[in-house]
Amino acid sequence: MGIFQRLAGRPLKSMCIWSLWSRHSSALTAVGRVTSDRALIVTSCQLTQHRYVHRGGLGASPSNPGAAPPRLPFSRVTHDDLAFFRTLLPGRTITDPDLLKSSNVDWLKTVEGNSEVLLRPKTTEEVSQILRYCNERHLAVCPQGGNTGLVGGSVPVFDEIILSTSLMNQVMTFDNISGILTCQAGCVLENLSLYLEERDFIMPLDLGAKGSCHIGGNVSTNAGGLRLLRYGSLRGTVLGLEVVLADGRVLNCLATLRKDNTGYDLKQLFIGSEGTLGVITAVSILCPRKPKAVNVAFLGCSSFQQLLETFQCCRGMLGEILSAFEFLDASCMNLLEKHLKLTNPITECPFYIVIETAGSNSAHDEEKLHNFLEEVMTSSLVTDGTVATEATKIKALWSLRERVTEALTHEGYTYKYDISLPVEKIYDLVEDMRRHLGDMAKNVVGYGHVGDGNLHLNITSPSKDPALLTAIEPYVYEWTARWKGSISAEHGLGLKKRNYIYYSKPSEAVALMGSIKAMLDPKGILNPYKTLPDNIH
Amino acid sequence: MGIFQRLAGRPLKSMCIWSLWSRHSSALTAVGRVTSDRALIVTSCQLTQHRYVHRGGLGASPSNPGAAPPRLPFSRVTHDDLAFFRTLLPGRTITDPDLLKSSNVDWLKTVEGNSEVLLRPKTTEEVSQILRYCNERHLAVCPQGGNTGLVGGSVPVFDEIILSTSLMNQVMTFDNISGILTCQAGCVLENLSLYLEERDFIMPLDLGAKGSCHIGGNVSTNAGGLRLLRYGSLRGTVLGLEVVLADGRVLNCLATLRKDNTGYDLKQLFIGSEGTLGVITAVSILCPRKPKAVNVAFLGCSSFQQLLETFQCCRGMLGEILSAFEFLDASCMNLLEKHLKLTNPITECPFYIVIETAGSNSAHDEEKLHNFLEEVMTSSLVTDGTVATEATKIKALWSLRERVTEALTHEGYTYKYDISLPVEKIYDLVEDMRRHLGDMAKNVVGYGHVGDGNLHLNITSPSKDPALLTAIEPYVYEWTARWKGSISAEHGLGLKKRNYIYYSKPSEAVALMGSIKAMLDPKGILNPYKTLPDNIH
Repeated sequence: MGIFQRLAGRPLKSMCIWSLWSRHSSALTAVGRVTSDRALIVTSCQLTQHRYVHRGGLGASPSNPGAAPPRLPFSRVTHDDLAFFRTLLPGRTITDPDLLKSSNVDWLKTVEGNSEVLLRPKTTEEVSQILRYCNERHLAVCPQGGNTGLVGGSVPVFDEIILSTSLMNQVMTFDNISGILTCQAGCVLENLSLYLEERDFIMPLDLGAKGSCHIGGNVSTNAGGLRLLRYGSLRGTVLGLEVVLADGRVLNCLATLRKDNTGYDLKQLFIGSEGTLGVITAVSILCPRKPKAVNVAFLGCSSFQQLLETFQCCRGMLGEILSAFEFLDASCMNLLEKHLKLTNPITECPFYIVIETAGSNSAHDEEKLHNFLEEVMTSSLVTDGTVATEATKIKALWSLRERVTEALTHEGYTYKYDISLPVEKIYDLVEDMRRHLGDMAKNVVGYGHVGDGNLHLNITSPSKDPALLTAIEPYVYEWTARWKGSISAEHGLGLKKRNYIYYSKPSEAVALMGSIKAMLDPKGILNPYKTLPDNIH
Repeated sequence: MGIFQRLAGRPLKSMCIWSLWSRHSSALTAVGRVTSDRALIVTSCQLTQHRYVHRGGLGASPSNPGAAPPRLPFSRVTHDDLAFFRTLLPGRTITDPDLLKSSNVDWLKTVEGNSEVLLRPKTTEEVSQILRYCNERHLAVCPQGGNTGLVGGSVPVFDEIILSTSLMNQVMTFDNISGILTCQAGCVLENLSLYLEERDFIMPLDLGAKGSCHIGGNVSTNAGGLRLLRYGSLRGTVLGLEVVLADGRVLNCLATLRKDNTGYDLKQLFIGSEGTLGVITAVSILCPRKPKAVNVAFLGCSSFQQLLETFQCCRGMLGEILSAFEFLDASCMNLLEKHLKLTNPITECPFYIVIETAGSNSAHDEEKLHNFLEEVMTSSLVTDGTVATEATKIKALWSLRERVTEALTHEGYTYKYDISLPVEKIYDLVEDMRRHLGDMAKNVVGYGHVGDGNLHLNITSPSKDPALLTAIEPYVYEWTARWKGSISAEHGLGLKKRNYIYYSKPSEAVALMGSIKAMLDPKGILNPYKTLPDNIH
């Protein structure tokens, strides 16, 4: 009897692996908190003076770096403007406040604007005409995809016109030799995944929000997610973009080539710049073949050091088939059991690991996983574990990692941080934060993408607690900066974190970002109040 | 007896796989042609009017787009300048013409400048002081790494000061958990590979010029090479850069994080911009684990269509272990036999494929390769083949692909093109060019990276032949543009191809590149006459 069977007594069964890839589709049901205060950030606001560690500083340090700044002197939408939009986009110029409501508030319900007009273009030419008009009229524009962002980047802060990509949802081409997909920016990620799976390919990225998020938004925010460990970042997989600039010019860099060294790679400017430099209207992206076999192992470790050693061993022995290495701590498991009634499938321990393999030969993959498990069990790096190869069991194991966020929403108020650190440091932050906060916090929990050095640090409290927040921030940012980490690994800066940029970037870099913004959007109409700090706008 | 053995009767042996990774170290011995004309391009100059296909156009179309433009009005180096440099870099300010000779001419010996001073800084601070001084004095600077570029990008065109990174050759840090290496820009790629192999890692890129090229130059030119199919481009694997801007400001974006979404990703501006926007002084890069098993198969196909079908089958069956899929045509094989006395290991056929696998389990890899070979032999996609798992045999098979360039140098004069196309189109260009040129050309051959859609098209002639060149250009560029290809897949634009940029980029994009250049280097001192077309400078 092999390790697969011995670990949890579950026989290996033939599996319907593809349900795995839709496991995140219902993630958008988690609740947030509605605020009645317009243009006010409910979470992540901080009342202390911003302290700089070693990376630079704001010219004028705001007292509340996460809150909205004063409205900039953009024009206000007039009847003439609406008439123009209605002529350009008949039936697709939305002004009904009820219909605008969901587009004015972010998914976490922590940022709410009061835009009075939502535009739904279908073509690049329409986007171009909208921006040309808005730029001339000095009207601010908030580009919006699936509105699933977590940092207030995809909703208006004041009365910015919402430019939605929701009707730009056509696949343009797919080449089943090269695996290169070209599509409009408003295609929903899950729809693209389904389209590709029928053709024996997959998207190179997978996110909890896949059922709602748009590929254009994914690219604008340089989304990370669960497949980054295997397929790399969008900076490598996105091959081309079509972008409309602030003044309406269309920049067609929609190449479908793996290699192209003709001049500067302009598309990189628009990947991860959160719609502040241009509106992405189409994307070409390199898609991997659909793996023929997927396995998931859920393991326990008695220390984070052992977890790190397990990671090293795993990378060596699973090599090219490793597709995810995720972790959660015992506090997360307690919350899963307490609030969601999930059952821990293995014996209790301080750390839990989710390992996924994806490969082209199921027998080979199972043998590699077996050898790896035997090694880590024999050397006592891992104290217990279970393996799933069958779809529903894979899903059940994944839910222990995936539903931590949901479990946290039942704990009260949660302060959320998305931190990159050298991988050996990621849990030190959690432990240090526990010591630092003592009894002030109800819970300090850590989970995330070990394979990418990406920690999701969550601190809970029975209710919103300004004193607790003061104890967390800027402490957490200073700690991150001290270890040369990133204060936003994958979520971006948006509205909420824009003023914290100096903890991860030197002032020379931020100043250069400001120059790029001024060059591409001299009137600053594109997604104002986002990404760049207030002293740069 | 399995396919491995049957194919060529060679038994599988245990192998010393790592000699594979040094197979390119002697590639720099191939010869070029010296010209006595200063600042004149010997190859790739063309005498016909530049014709635009559909991507834009030059403001003022030069009659000879590949040749050097007139010298721009930079200052000339004075005794006072030399005194400054000698104080800053004692013993490292080179003015002896004999010592300068090899730095003034490119590897192909087709571009030669007449710089009178070569600076060899050791630190970023020294680079900063050099550029601050040169910018103030309006002195042009040509940054130079290993000087192995093929488009005249790494040598002065006139009297630009050569800023060499050759003494900036220190490894700064290596993290054996994350595989992240940080080093100075002047580290030689092969030295980094050896350093990493001792630590059970490899560089994510491998090039013919590895014995000479610098990592800073690799990044500046966004080098592709043999591992791109597996590990992706430098845009994904380079995690951080330190760059000195034209005015001497140091931009420290030397992050060692897999994920960092804090603001615009400025390092991308310097990847592939050929030293025209800043001088890269340090690099951090994500390195993969050293694979435990490597196999190479050399196969024959009777048509390019069958070769493409073999590629598709290969991607499906070899999946995650496929690390290279290269091809050469029968004309290349003839040249290898004729000039280098190499032996074709299989029966003669129109197309030959080199497939490499790299994985973590040799038994699994061999079984996958076996199954794949059985499939393509049974279905007659492949007519014959041989497999090597032992180091010297792997090297011998690779040399059939690697030494085509060398064989070509014995044929007379060679016109070289590095083209990206949709993979199903790459050989159509070779066949069309043969028809188009008829008896004018001695040989029209094709080889390259099928996996990346990258064709190396080479056209030979007994000697330099302006009439032949007129027949080739702009025909080859128009053909490429018609299929939305790239006129420079991995070599960059440098001096030689700068004016052909419009065949692969629209005029809006080129104009924006000009704005970026003007923003970062307003006096234009950094690597003038390179990358951007003459109407933008």
